[in-house]
Amino acid sequence: MKIKYEKIKGEKNTKARLGLIHTNYGTVKTPMFMPVGTQATVKTLSPEELKDINSGVILSNTYHLWLRPGEDIVAKAGGLHKFMNYDGPILTDSGGFQVFSLAEKKNISEEGVIFKSHINGEKLFLTPEKSIEIQNKLDSDIAMSFDECIPYPASYDYAKKSTERTIRWAKRGKEAHKNPNQSLFGIVQGGEYTDLREWSAKETVKLGFDGYSIGGTSVGEDKPTMYKMVEDAIRYLPEDKPRYLMGVGDPIDILEGVERGVDMFDCVLPTRIARHGNAFTRNGKINLKNAKFKEDFTPLEDNCDCYACKHYTKAYIRHLIVANETFGQRLLSIHNLRFLIKLTEDIRKSIAEDKFLEFKEEFIDKYQK
Amino acid sequence: MKIKYEKIKGEKNTKARLGLIHTNYGTVKTPMFMPVGTQATVKTLSPEELKDINSGVILSNTYHLWLRPGEDIVAKAGGLHKFMNYDGPILTDSGGFQVFSLAEKKNISEEGVIFKSHINGEKLFLTPEKSIEIQNKLDSDIAMSFDECIPYPASYDYAKKSTERTIRWAKRGKEAHKNPNQSLFGIVQGGEYTDLREWSAKETVKLGFDGYSIGGTSVGEDKPTMYKMVEDAIRYLPEDKPRYLMGVGDPIDILEGVERGVDMFDCVLPTRIARHGNAFTRNGKINLKNAKFKEDFTPLEDNCDCYACKHYTKAYIRHLIVANETFGQRLLSIHNLRFLIKLTEDIRKSIAEDKFLEFKEEFIDKYQK
Repeated sequence: MKIKYEKIKGEKNTKARLGLIHTNYGTVKTPMFMPVGTQATVKTLSPEELKDINSGVILSNTYHLWLRPGEDIVAKAGGLHKFMNYDGPILTDSGGFQVFSLAEKKNISEEGVIFKSHINGEKLFLTPEKSIEIQNKLDSDIAMSFDECIPYPASYDYAKKSTERTIRWAKRGKEAHKNPNQSLFGIVQGGEYTDLREWSAKETVKLGFDGYSIGGTSVGEDKPTMYKMVEDAIRYLPEDKPRYLMGVGDPIDILEGVERGVDMFDCVLPTRIARHGNAFTRNGKINLKNAKFKEDFTPLEDNCDCYACKHYTKAYIRHLIVANETFGQRLLSIHNLRFLIKLTEDIRKSIAEDKFLEFKEEFIDKYQK
Repeated sequence: MKIKYEKIKGEKNTKARLGLIHTNYGTVKTPMFMPVGTQATVKTLSPEELKDINSGVILSNTYHLWLRPGEDIVAKAGGLHKFMNYDGPILTDSGGFQVFSLAEKKNISEEGVIFKSHINGEKLFLTPEKSIEIQNKLDSDIAMSFDECIPYPASYDYAKKSTERTIRWAKRGKEAHKNPNQSLFGIVQGGEYTDLREWSAKETVKLGFDGYSIGGTSVGEDKPTMYKMVEDAIRYLPEDKPRYLMGVGDPIDILEGVERGVDMFDCVLPTRIARHGNAFTRNGKINLKNAKFKEDFTPLEDNCDCYACKHYTKAYIRHLIVANETFGQRLLSIHNLRFLIKLTEDIRKSIAEDKFLEFKEEFIDKYQK
């Protein structure tokens, strides 16, 4: 069965919306933040810990799983859910972004992308069909179309050619898609150009997908440009399908995205900054390596309901991080993911009460102080 | 309150014995294997995961905690139990072994050891009094006397002088000990020399400790020599106190130790080999990096009751290890610790039934095949 998006309500004063996504692995609430499990594991965490922090959909990555362990092994294991012991919904990225960000010496043609593996330098060829075929085998609940993530800045000419090709790739991918239990999302590109975003959105919607992503953001552009990219795309996306802003996980960006009608977010940020000793708090990010936490026997954040805050002090977590103990990274990862998931819970509450803007203002005010 | 050892029964055919150790943090059964949490964390694991695998006492390390975060911070946190959120019994090593194995350019005198920190090269001075003072502050349930771990091989003359000094250090440490809720163990040294082991054991017992450790093993000697060191010491140790063979965690060595009357074991082996992709099984160690596990969708070990074996396949754990994901190390750490703890559970059952030798023979037969 494909996923089904159900809009519950629109917020009175903004484009923010409350919704449900029904999947074969349960129903999840939107707006939502999706933890990233690139290599079939959300770094340092168990599936039970993900459930504990109320995670809905988690992400995994086509490019990485294609290289290791290989999609056939995941298929033989019975698909990604069984392979990694996660019985909630899983979304797989198409590999387009990783080809852009990780691969060396890439060569993009109409057919696809030739590039070198970031692991062993092996020459690889990824096409829209191949990306979908891999995702079909991984058996995620939501697959992504293969796209080119346009660098920023890019010339109008480059952005136009790339955006047009991404549409042709989306069409090819859709035709190649064969897994009846897997939904497929299209991705709106267009770079920083309003008319290209419009064209891309309309053409992608014409092809007809189970949901729509906004890609090509978080690639170095400034915040107003990112928010404009979202606006330029989202106005042409249908109300009855979920909208996913790819690679965005900064708390303020989540609020700005929700205000513009985004339902889904993902980002490696919460687990990556955890590995460097950082924690989100309502009063902004803190770095546990800072000496001022040496004798701070309070939790990362007062009133946080996560496992790390219920049982451990900043002093202990600081000790673990300084001593390079992975349990410290694990505690910070739990906290940071819970922070973003709790943020979306609070956002949903504020939408239900038509008080999104008050909530946003209050949050940002504290967070940036 | 100090710990209290209660002997339940001796095995009919060997020196193996079944016992209980009553502590302020619960009663534990012996023979037992103690997971090592060097830096106030058993690498990659949570306290809840330690409880899940039925761990009794865990170890932590005076030398490491002295350097980071410092014993005063642990004391201010309310002691090691509170600091690391572990409400089972904790034993702290004295730092003697780490000065031997980690520190650079050490200089041993009657007063103590001058050496360089393995972290930043800082000049440090550890004495028997200082080691005890740190342990008093850490507030572990069981502290160890500060000793010199004699290298192997060592001349008779060196071993004799060192062993005599260790006795003087034990006396000084005992006099310096001030924490009424902390028990103190003496450590038998003597190197490979039967008469020195005898002298060390008798002199240590004369001083009167809450338990007795056998130190200076696992330092490069062959197995028959190690087992002889144990025999040479243990025959002079009192029946009514626990005996602890330090740094030993090979399954066969545990069996050999139990047969000779040892009650407690510890070793970094299960978590260290986990980080290199190795798993204990009843049929010997396996390395998950081996290509033959690529498509092995069975658990690490049939009938193992650990979390890793209940939910994950060798293929998945292999993938995590190859992709350098810490969740793989975590799953293998859980399994390996559970393997040794389950081994001690089976050992206790065999002692209760006076069938230790049959159990030992059967285990070794399978393990070495």
